[in-house]
Amino acid sequence: MQSLWTDHLSSGARQITSSAIRDLLKVTEQPDMISFAGGLPAPECFPTEELTAAAERVLVERPLAALQYGPTEGYRPLRELLINVMRGRGLGIPVDQILMLSGSQQGLDAVGKLFIDPGSTVLVEEPTYLGALQAWRPYSPKFITLPMDADGLDVSALERALQAGERPRFLYLVSCFQNPTGITPSVERKRAVLEVAAEYGLPIVEDDPYGELYYEGERPPILAALDAEMHGELQHIIYLSTFSKLLAPGLRVGWAVAPTEIVAKLAHVKQGLDLHTGSLAQATAYEACRDGLLDRHVPTIRATYHVRRDAMLAALETYMPKEVRWTRPTGGMFIWLTLPAHIDTTKLLQASLEQKVAFVPGMSFYANGGGTNTMRLNFSHSAPERITEGVARLARSIAARF
Amino acid sequence: MQSLWTDHLSSGARQITSSAIRDLLKVTEQPDMISFAGGLPAPECFPTEELTAAAERVLVERPLAALQYGPTEGYRPLRELLINVMRGRGLGIPVDQILMLSGSQQGLDAVGKLFIDPGSTVLVEEPTYLGALQAWRPYSPKFITLPMDADGLDVSALERALQAGERPRFLYLVSCFQNPTGITPSVERKRAVLEVAAEYGLPIVEDDPYGELYYEGERPPILAALDAEMHGELQHIIYLSTFSKLLAPGLRVGWAVAPTEIVAKLAHVKQGLDLHTGSLAQATAYEACRDGLLDRHVPTIRATYHVRRDAMLAALETYMPKEVRWTRPTGGMFIWLTLPAHIDTTKLLQASLEQKVAFVPGMSFYANGGGTNTMRLNFSHSAPERITEGVARLARSIAARF
Repeated sequence: MQSLWTDHLSSGARQITSSAIRDLLKVTEQPDMISFAGGLPAPECFPTEELTAAAERVLVERPLAALQYGPTEGYRPLRELLINVMRGRGLGIPVDQILMLSGSQQGLDAVGKLFIDPGSTVLVEEPTYLGALQAWRPYSPKFITLPMDADGLDVSALERALQAGERPRFLYLVSCFQNPTGITPSVERKRAVLEVAAEYGLPIVEDDPYGELYYEGERPPILAALDAEMHGELQHIIYLSTFSKLLAPGLRVGWAVAPTEIVAKLAHVKQGLDLHTGSLAQATAYEACRDGLLDRHVPTIRATYHVRRDAMLAALETYMPKEVRWTRPTGGMFIWLTLPAHIDTTKLLQASLEQKVAFVPGMSFYANGGGTNTMRLNFSHSAPERITEGVARLARSIAARF
Repeated sequence: MQSLWTDHLSSGARQITSSAIRDLLKVTEQPDMISFAGGLPAPECFPTEELTAAAERVLVERPLAALQYGPTEGYRPLRELLINVMRGRGLGIPVDQILMLSGSQQGLDAVGKLFIDPGSTVLVEEPTYLGALQAWRPYSPKFITLPMDADGLDVSALERALQAGERPRFLYLVSCFQNPTGITPSVERKRAVLEVAAEYGLPIVEDDPYGELYYEGERPPILAALDAEMHGELQHIIYLSTFSKLLAPGLRVGWAVAPTEIVAKLAHVKQGLDLHTGSLAQATAYEACRDGLLDRHVPTIRATYHVRRDAMLAALETYMPKEVRWTRPTGGMFIWLTLPAHIDTTKLLQASLEQKVAFVPGMSFYANGGGTNTMRLNFSHSAPERITEGVARLARSIAARF
C-alpha cells in the first residue's frame, strides 16, 4: 500500500522535507521549555478585545461578508484600507495592485507557481527565510545563494552572478529585519540592489513581515517604494506583507502588492489554491483596523519587543563565550548567532533541549547547505526574565562544547 | 515593464486562465440578476447565531487557540470531532489520518503538488469540477477524460484506459451529487470503480463536498468507506470534504482523509502553502459543532434545498423546449442541462445575461474541450419563486435559438 502512493509521487514531492522549525515546535510546547525556536509573536500583544468586538460586529451586522464565498482578490474594504497602510510605507497604489493572501506564506507559494519551472534559477540571500525554501523546493528550482554582510545582500555578488549569464526568475529578499539574521540593509544598499535589478531586468520578490517592528529611529524604507520612486511606478517588485505580526497570525491574512497585471495573474493562481482567503478573518481584520487600531496598537508591540531584544542582547553579552558572534538588529524578532566553526548547532540542539532551551539550527536557512555553526534566536515570544535565563542555559550548553 | 515579468513566467503559469465561474460572479452581483451560476450555499441557511456565539466564546475563553500560529495538521479538537463525522460516513479512522485544509480546494492543489509532474496522466470524469482543473493545470498534466452515464463514471472506459497502458497518477471523482452534473453513482458502480483501482494499483482522489445534501433516501456511501471495507483499511483513497456546505464557506475550513503516510506528506506540502489553516475559523467551527450542531442544522439545509431542487425540476418541466434534456439529482446543488448540439451555451449566456439570468456554460467542466451545448444550473442559492422565474427566462432565451 505504501508503494501504491509513493510510486505515484511527483519529482518535486520527492524533495519535500519537513520544516525543522515546525517539527521543533512540537517539542517546545512543554511548559518548562524556554523556546527561542518559533517565530511566534507574543500572545499578550494580540489586541484580543478589539478582535473579539470586531468579529462580533461583523457577524451581527454583515454576516454575508463574514460567511459567504468572497472574491479571490480579497475583501474590498480591507484592500482599500491597505492603500493607506501602503501609503504609510511610502508607496501610493490603486486597489487593483493589492491582492489578499492566506498569510504572506501563500504569496511565496503563488510566486513559485507563477515563475518557477524545474531547473529555473532563483536568487536568495544566504541565509534566507526557510519558509520560502519550503514553498519553492517542490517546484524544483536551482537556488543560487548570495552572501550577506552587516548591511545585507552583497550587491557585487549579485552583479557577478548576473554578469556570468544567470537568468534568474527572481531575486528573493526579506528587506527589513531579515528572517533569520535580523539584518536591514541601508537605503543606499537597497538603492544599489534596485539599480542592478533595473540594469538586468531582474524581478524581485520583497518579503516584509517585520518592517513595522522597529526599535530605533524610523521604519526602514521598502524596496517597493524605492522602486516606484526610481521609475515613477512600481516595476520590479512583488511585495508581500501580513497582519500576522500586527494583529494575530491565527487570522492567516496577508497581502501582495505588485504591478496590476501580476496581481491579476497571482489572483488566477490563487483561485486554484483556495478560491479566496477566509471571509471571517478578512472582515474581522478590517473591522478591527478601520478606526485606526494599528496606529494605537503597533507601538505597544514595538515597546514590548524592544525590551525583549535589549534583554537578549544584554544576556548574550553577559553569558556567551567570547568566541560567539551575533547580530544586533534594530527591529524584528530574531538574533543570529555564529559559533566557532567546529560546533554543529544541530548536535548542540539535542543537548540544549535537555537543558530546556530551544533554538533553530541555522543550516535550515541555507538553501544549498552550510551554516552548521549558526543558529537563530527569537526574542519576541519570551518574557525578559525567561530570555535571560534561557540565554544563560544556552551559553552553558555552548561552553560545554569548547 | 510588462515583459520584465511575462518573460519570467513558468510554463505552467502560461496555461492559467481565469475561472469562467468566478468572472461571471462579478457580473451576477447585480440585484435584479437571477443567478444559477455560482455554487453558493443559501446564506439564510448559515447558522449565523451559533457561529457568532462560537467565535465570541473562543476569543474570550481560548484566545490563543484562535489567534496564535497553530499546527499545520490542524486544530486538534476539530480533527477529533471529524473522527465522529467520518464515522457517520461509514469510515473509522484515527486522528492522524485527518488533515485540516483551507477549504477542500486547497486539498486539490496539494494533491497536484504531491503527484503531478509535467505530462503526468490524470484521469477525470467528463464533465468534472472545474476548480480541480484550475488547481492542476499549472502542474501541466495530461488529462484523460472518462465518459459518464446516468450512473456516473463509465467503468469499462476506465478499464480500457488502464489496459491500454496508461499509468495515471490518480483518478479524480466527485463521488456524491457531482459538480457539475448532480449525478451520484450507485454503490454497485462505486464498488466496480474500486475493484478496478485495486486491480491496477490506481490511487483515487475522492471529492465529497455535497454528500450530506441528500433529498431522497439516505446519504450516499463514500468510496473511502467502501475501500476500507474491501481492504480492512483505507488504501486507495485521498478523501476531501469541507464545512463550506454544512456551516459556511467563508470560514475556508475543509479536510482531507488519507492513509497516514499520505497525510504526513500532504501536511509537508501544506507547510509551504500557508503554514496552517486559519485558527479563528477552525476554533469557531469546532466550538459551533462540539455540541452536535451539525445533526440539528444540516437537516434544515436539506429541507430548504430540497424545495429548491423540486422548484427547478418543475420549472424545467414546465418551460423548457422538449429538445432540452437535464439530470434529476437526488441531492447536491446542481442540475446539468444538455441542449441541441447546435446551441453554443457560451453565446447563449450573453443573451441570457440581457434577460437577467445567469448560468455556467458547460464547456468549463470539460478538461479537453467539448460540451459546448451544456450548462450547469445551481438551485441552492435562489428562492423557489426566483428559480421558477429564472428558468422561464432561460427557456425563452433557449427557445429563441431554435
